[in-house]
Amino acid sequence: MAGAAGVGGYAVARGTDDDGAAGAGSRTYPFRGAHQAGITTPAQDRLHFAAFDVTTDDRDTLVDLLREWTAAAERMTQARPAGEVGPVEGNPLAPPDDTGEAIGLPASGLTLTFGFGPGLFRDGRGRDRFGLADRQPEALRDLPKFPADALDPRRSGGDLCVQACADDPQVAVHAIRNLARIGFGTVSIRWSQLGFGRTSSTSTSQATARNLFGFKDGTANVKAEETAALEEHVWVRPGADANPAAAWLEGGSYLCARRISMDIEVWDRQALANQERDVGRDKGEGAPLTGTKESDPFDFTAVTGTEPTIAETAHVRVVHPQFHGGARMLRRGYNFVDGTNDLGGLDAGLFFVAFVTDPRTHFTPIQNAMARTDALMEYLTATGSALFAVPPGIGEGEHVGQALFA
Amino acid sequence: MAGAAGVGGYAVARGTDDDGAAGAGSRTYPFRGAHQAGITTPAQDRLHFAAFDVTTDDRDTLVDLLREWTAAAERMTQARPAGEVGPVEGNPLAPPDDTGEAIGLPASGLTLTFGFGPGLFRDGRGRDRFGLADRQPEALRDLPKFPADALDPRRSGGDLCVQACADDPQVAVHAIRNLARIGFGTVSIRWSQLGFGRTSSTSTSQATARNLFGFKDGTANVKAEETAALEEHVWVRPGADANPAAAWLEGGSYLCARRISMDIEVWDRQALANQERDVGRDKGEGAPLTGTKESDPFDFTAVTGTEPTIAETAHVRVVHPQFHGGARMLRRGYNFVDGTNDLGGLDAGLFFVAFVTDPRTHFTPIQNAMARTDALMEYLTATGSALFAVPPGIGEGEHVGQALFA
Repeated sequence: MAGAAGVGGYAVARGTDDDGAAGAGSRTYPFRGAHQAGITTPAQDRLHFAAFDVTTDDRDTLVDLLREWTAAAERMTQARPAGEVGPVEGNPLAPPDDTGEAIGLPASGLTLTFGFGPGLFRDGRGRDRFGLADRQPEALRDLPKFPADALDPRRSGGDLCVQACADDPQVAVHAIRNLARIGFGTVSIRWSQLGFGRTSSTSTSQATARNLFGFKDGTANVKAEETAALEEHVWVRPGADANPAAAWLEGGSYLCARRISMDIEVWDRQALANQERDVGRDKGEGAPLTGTKESDPFDFTAVTGTEPTIAETAHVRVVHPQFHGGARMLRRGYNFVDGTNDLGGLDAGLFFVAFVTDPRTHFTPIQNAMARTDALMEYLTATGSALFAVPPGIGEGEHVGQALFA
Repeated sequence: MAGAAGVGGYAVARGTDDDGAAGAGSRTYPFRGAHQAGITTPAQDRLHFAAFDVTTDDRDTLVDLLREWTAAAERMTQARPAGEVGPVEGNPLAPPDDTGEAIGLPASGLTLTFGFGPGLFRDGRGRDRFGLADRQPEALRDLPKFPADALDPRRSGGDLCVQACADDPQVAVHAIRNLARIGFGTVSIRWSQLGFGRTSSTSTSQATARNLFGFKDGTANVKAEETAALEEHVWVRPGADANPAAAWLEGGSYLCARRISMDIEVWDRQALANQERDVGRDKGEGAPLTGTKESDPFDFTAVTGTEPTIAETAHVRVVHPQFHGGARMLRRGYNFVDGTNDLGGLDAGLFFVAFVTDPRTHFTPIQNAMARTDALMEYLTATGSALFAVPPGIGEGEHVGQALFA
């Protein structure tokens, strides 16, 4: 940390080790590697997610932006300012090339993960603005409309996305804000979402967190340590897409984002037993209703009296891999509260983010099953939705998406 | 913490000391005392603020709610569940009396601070619903409309408010959500605001934080250690209000809340020198332009060439106590980002909260001066506004606002 802060004329240091070597604030992750950071990285506490529209039709301008974003993103994940000059140095007659609100803050585990939406390949009017149409993966199409969707177009879609995760929200917000600043004139923010509490664990070293139903979530998540499961369920495998010109995505993933509003006021009036029946776990421990510990297996054949112990409509049954050809996801969802809804309640819910090898096998069928059968759907409304192709990581000297534009 | 978790049949403990005795998570503040907590308490990192409309006309129902809120608030600030039964115990055929998402989380320094709006004394139609009109302080009137206000009525006003501050946002959200749950049928949430980063220090033990302009904010804030300044500028003094029947507020304070949208995209394109001129401090250190250290005094008479070194329109000059009869505030503001605005930018800004002895002397004149002269106003729009009387603290056996209803 201290070393990183010395680079680039950064007079006002970020990332002193005041918080202690073991403190969460001092976590720093490399930006480059075989895969992008922010997928298997142990899920940080806070999220700022932004989707952008590309407002230029010029391919070179877009590539220049990706190059600039790459440089800035790498710097910020290393607790350095977004630009070489920084927030307070350089020419006083020029705008600073960093906005300054993260001065003094450590890297806080910041990761920045970039994705490409279907609109980058063919826009809403079918135009191939950037000469990329032939490289569009077959699996990268707008998600279908699901029965319980009430999608707000201002919270859906996007040509590009950036997922900023950090343990300090000011660090995540600073990163998105500076990328938006750098992109001024080339991209505009289509929507953005803050998440205050992680609901998923992506490492066996992390405790399972709770969603706003008060239940543990994501117990069966694919974890960083499960390397075989990552290959099978998260990364895009060579030759997996029917379009051979989509090979640029191999080693990458798909990011499914869903803003799911939760009717927490109605949920809070349900009996504990009904809440547990609808989820399929007990609320305290998070154990399957057929077990006593969180890690116990589900026994979907067990009966209590004449009824299945885990109801046919229980969420854990409806989405369980054994009913979906073994499909699992790597989820990185966050709780959100965005003020108030029109009914005098909290505009609260789950910003669902999942990384999967193919949304057609690993997301859409599970979402359809939920819409059909899941008891929780009574309390859920999807108000935003987007799908992005997340390219693999990059090596030294490369920029985000280089293989796509090569 | 461990002791507190053992009370009330709380099978799933909150507040284990896993985070270490010195960790922020283990901070616990008493709920009762001469003043309410959450004013001079060292400003926690995160905020969830809620304003409520009272939907009943029945005084006893309102008092019952304040009694229930008091019990729940005291419990939650001590890392206990909102109700005696808790999230997972008791009758499985009844709804839990805690929503559960804070299971396992420590108190995280949670404070809950309650206030009463003008509408509690006389509603929008002039009705004295609760027999309190004669007790309305003269100083408790809706704030005037200021020139740069573009107030959204759905983000303004309210009969009651609760300020939840904690170092973990999930703990702050959990508290507001459970108070709203308890109040169902008696109150409804009028508006609510999350803040992710504190911008003020309320103790000399805290470093000054930065707002979304990238500048240090609140350097001259009234601090907990300044006991004489608290008496002069923050607490309501005996006999201070022209209405002798408003004595119930003595030892309390006024909470001015302003949701201030910041045009950060335009700000980010300003030259560093212009940013520093408009603020009146340097950006890196936060020193007055007439000094080199943050704590250096302002010299408003200094000139550079023929111009004042600190411009006539510099924010620090416009709001400085020496031009406002010495008036100071205790600010507890937070940065916010609420998604996206209609211009493709971030809906970002400062949720300004100040505690003052009298808004007529300690808030309105300063706000008017800003509207008239402050260079920063070019980037600021107030989109929400509210004023609340914050009663003093309570003793054992009392409920929030007891003196008002006695």
